[in-house]
Amino acid sequence: MTGLVIAVDAMGGDYGPRLVVSACVKSLVQYPELHLVLVGDAPNIESILAQTPQANHARISIKHASESISMAENPAYALRHKLDSSMRIALQMVRDQQVHACVSAGNTGALMALAKHVLNTLPYIDRPAIMTALPTLTGETHLLDLGANVDVSAQQLVQFAVMGSAAVQSRGLIRPRVALLNVGREAIKGNQQVKLAAAELEAMPQINYVGYVEGDGVFRGDADVVVCDGFVGNVLLKSSEGLAQLITARTKQCLGRGVRAWLLAWLAAPLLKVLRSEIAPERYNGACLLGVDGIVVKSHGNASEEAFQAAISVAYTAAKEGLAQRLQERLQAFSQV
Amino acid sequence: MTGLVIAVDAMGGDYGPRLVVSACVKSLVQYPELHLVLVGDAPNIESILAQTPQANHARISIKHASESISMAENPAYALRHKLDSSMRIALQMVRDQQVHACVSAGNTGALMALAKHVLNTLPYIDRPAIMTALPTLTGETHLLDLGANVDVSAQQLVQFAVMGSAAVQSRGLIRPRVALLNVGREAIKGNQQVKLAAAELEAMPQINYVGYVEGDGVFRGDADVVVCDGFVGNVLLKSSEGLAQLITARTKQCLGRGVRAWLLAWLAAPLLKVLRSEIAPERYNGACLLGVDGIVVKSHGNASEEAFQAAISVAYTAAKEGLAQRLQERLQAFSQV
Repeated sequence: MTGLVIAVDAMGGDYGPRLVVSACVKSLVQYPELHLVLVGDAPNIESILAQTPQANHARISIKHASESISMAENPAYALRHKLDSSMRIALQMVRDQQVHACVSAGNTGALMALAKHVLNTLPYIDRPAIMTALPTLTGETHLLDLGANVDVSAQQLVQFAVMGSAAVQSRGLIRPRVALLNVGREAIKGNQQVKLAAAELEAMPQINYVGYVEGDGVFRGDADVVVCDGFVGNVLLKSSEGLAQLITARTKQCLGRGVRAWLLAWLAAPLLKVLRSEIAPERYNGACLLGVDGIVVKSHGNASEEAFQAAISVAYTAAKEGLAQRLQERLQAFSQV
Repeated sequence: MTGLVIAVDAMGGDYGPRLVVSACVKSLVQYPELHLVLVGDAPNIESILAQTPQANHARISIKHASESISMAENPAYALRHKLDSSMRIALQMVRDQQVHACVSAGNTGALMALAKHVLNTLPYIDRPAIMTALPTLTGETHLLDLGANVDVSAQQLVQFAVMGSAAVQSRGLIRPRVALLNVGREAIKGNQQVKLAAAELEAMPQINYVGYVEGDGVFRGDADVVVCDGFVGNVLLKSSEGLAQLITARTKQCLGRGVRAWLLAWLAAPLLKVLRSEIAPERYNGACLLGVDGIVVKSHGNASEEAFQAAISVAYTAAKEGLAQRLQERLQAFSQV
C-alpha cells in the first residue's frame, strides 16, 4: 500500500460498526491519499460496507478480529483475556508498522492499558496521557490529560507538560506556552501535586512554563498547553460539551415558531455555522494518546459520524506531521538530562 | 432593625468597595425588606455612598473595619493576624446574630478558614463546602464543592452529599437526586475517594443517591445535587464560564456589521436576553458556604455589579428559607446515627 494508512477499531464506541464504517467511507473521500484498515468482525463489516457507496472501496481493507471490548469492561480483564480484540489488533498493526496510526472510540481505560502493553511507553514517560485541542478566543489550546490517569503524581504532571509541549512543537509552534490548571493563579493555590509540579517546571529551561491557569483561562487562550490530571481534564471536557449542548438546546427553544423565528434562523445561519464548525464538540473530537511508541487516537464513545471523521483527521494529521518520531526524539533528550 | 439584615464585606473582590456599594444600593431597591451593613473602611465607604442615590440609605449602616484581606493573602496568615478585617467582622456579626447572613467577594481560602474559626462547623461536618446553583436543560442543579477543599477524603465527599441534599431539601425539593461527579458512569471508573464515597452513599437510606454523573450530565440535569472535590468543582465552574464567554465573544464577532447584522441583532434580542438571564455567569453568582453555623455567601472575586447583586439575592433567599437552622436540624440527625 502507498499513501497513509490508518487502522480503525470498527467495534469501538456506543453505536457500533455501522457509524464507524460510514464515517470511514466519508474520510476516504476527504483524503485521497488515505487508506483505512477496518478491524473487527469481518462478516459484519463486509455486510455494512456492501451498503455504502463503492467509489473508494479499493482503499479499504478489513482485518478480522474475533472479539471486541465493551465500554464497561474492566481494562485489566481486557488486557489479560481479550487477546483477539479489535482494539488490540489495531494497536498491533501500529506496532508492526503495518499502519501509520490507529483510531478507536472504545473503552478509554482498555485503550490506555493495551496501548501501553502493545506499544510500550516512550523514554522518560511513566504513563501515557490523552491530549485534545480546544477552541479559544485567539485560536486553540491543547489540554491533557483527559481521563487516562485519575490519580497522578507531580512527576507525572511534569511528564505530561513535556509531552504536550513536544507534541505542540511538532505542529510548528516554536515555544508553546505551557501552564498547569489550578484553582487560582496565586502561588499558594492548589493541591500538593500541582505545587510540586510547578516548582519543577519553573526550573526546566526547555519548557516555556507560564504558571497557573484557571478554568476560564483555558478558553481565553492563556496557554498553548494546559496540564492537569485525568479526572479534572475529563470533567472539564465533558462539562464544556454539556454546556455547549445546553446553550444549543436553549437557543433552539428560543427560536420557536413563526415568521420572526424563520427570519432569525435564516439570518443566523452563518453564525450558527461558525459556532458549529469552531466550537462544537464534533469539531474537536479525536484525542491523541501521547507517550506510547506510535500514533493512537481516541474518539469519544458517543461520537457522531461527523465527530468520528474528525478523529480520523486528527490521526491523519499526526501521522503526516510525524508526531511519533518527533515526540520520541524530544523525549530522548529529556531522558538523558 | 426589623426585616432581614445582611452584612456585606465591602472590601472583598477584585474591584474594591465602589462596585460592592453600588450593587448594595441596587439590592435595596430590589428587596424593600432588606437592610445591609457595609463592613470595611468607613471613610471610604461613606464617600462612595455620598455619590449614590439616597432613597434607601436609611436601610444601610456602616461597620468600620481597619483591615482588609487581599486576594493573594495566605489564609493561615489572615486567620492569625488580620483580627480586624472586614471579612472577619462580617462573620462575627453573623455569629453574634446581629445579621441574618453575610456576603463576601474576597479570598475564598481566607473566607473558608475564618468562617470555620468564627462560626464553627455544624454537627457531623469536618470541613465546610461551597455550593452553587447551575442551569440545566430541565431547570437547575447544585454543585459542591467549588474550591474550598482541594484534597478530600471519601468521608468528606459523603458529608458534602449530605449537606447538599439537606440544603436543597430546605428549598422545597422533597427527595433530591444526589450524584457523585466522575469520569464515567460505570462502577469501575474513578479514583479511590469517589469509589469509597459511592459505596457509603449507596448504603444511606436518607440520601437519594443516583450514582455517578459525568461532566455533561451536570448540565443535562441528571441530578439535583452533584458532589465533587473543590479542585474539580472549581475547574468545572470556571471553565464553563470561560466557554460561555468564548461563545458570547464569537457570537458578537459573527454579528459583524451591515443591515443583516442589524436585523439579526434585533431579531435575536429575545434569544440573547434568555441566554443572558438564564445561563450567564452573572445569574449564577453567589455560592453558599455550607457546614458552618450561619449563612455565608461567597461571590466571585471578579463579579460585576449585577453578579454581586445576585450573590446578595442568594444570601437573602437562604436567610428567608432559614437555611442555617434547617441544615443544623438535618445534620443533627446524621450525627446521631
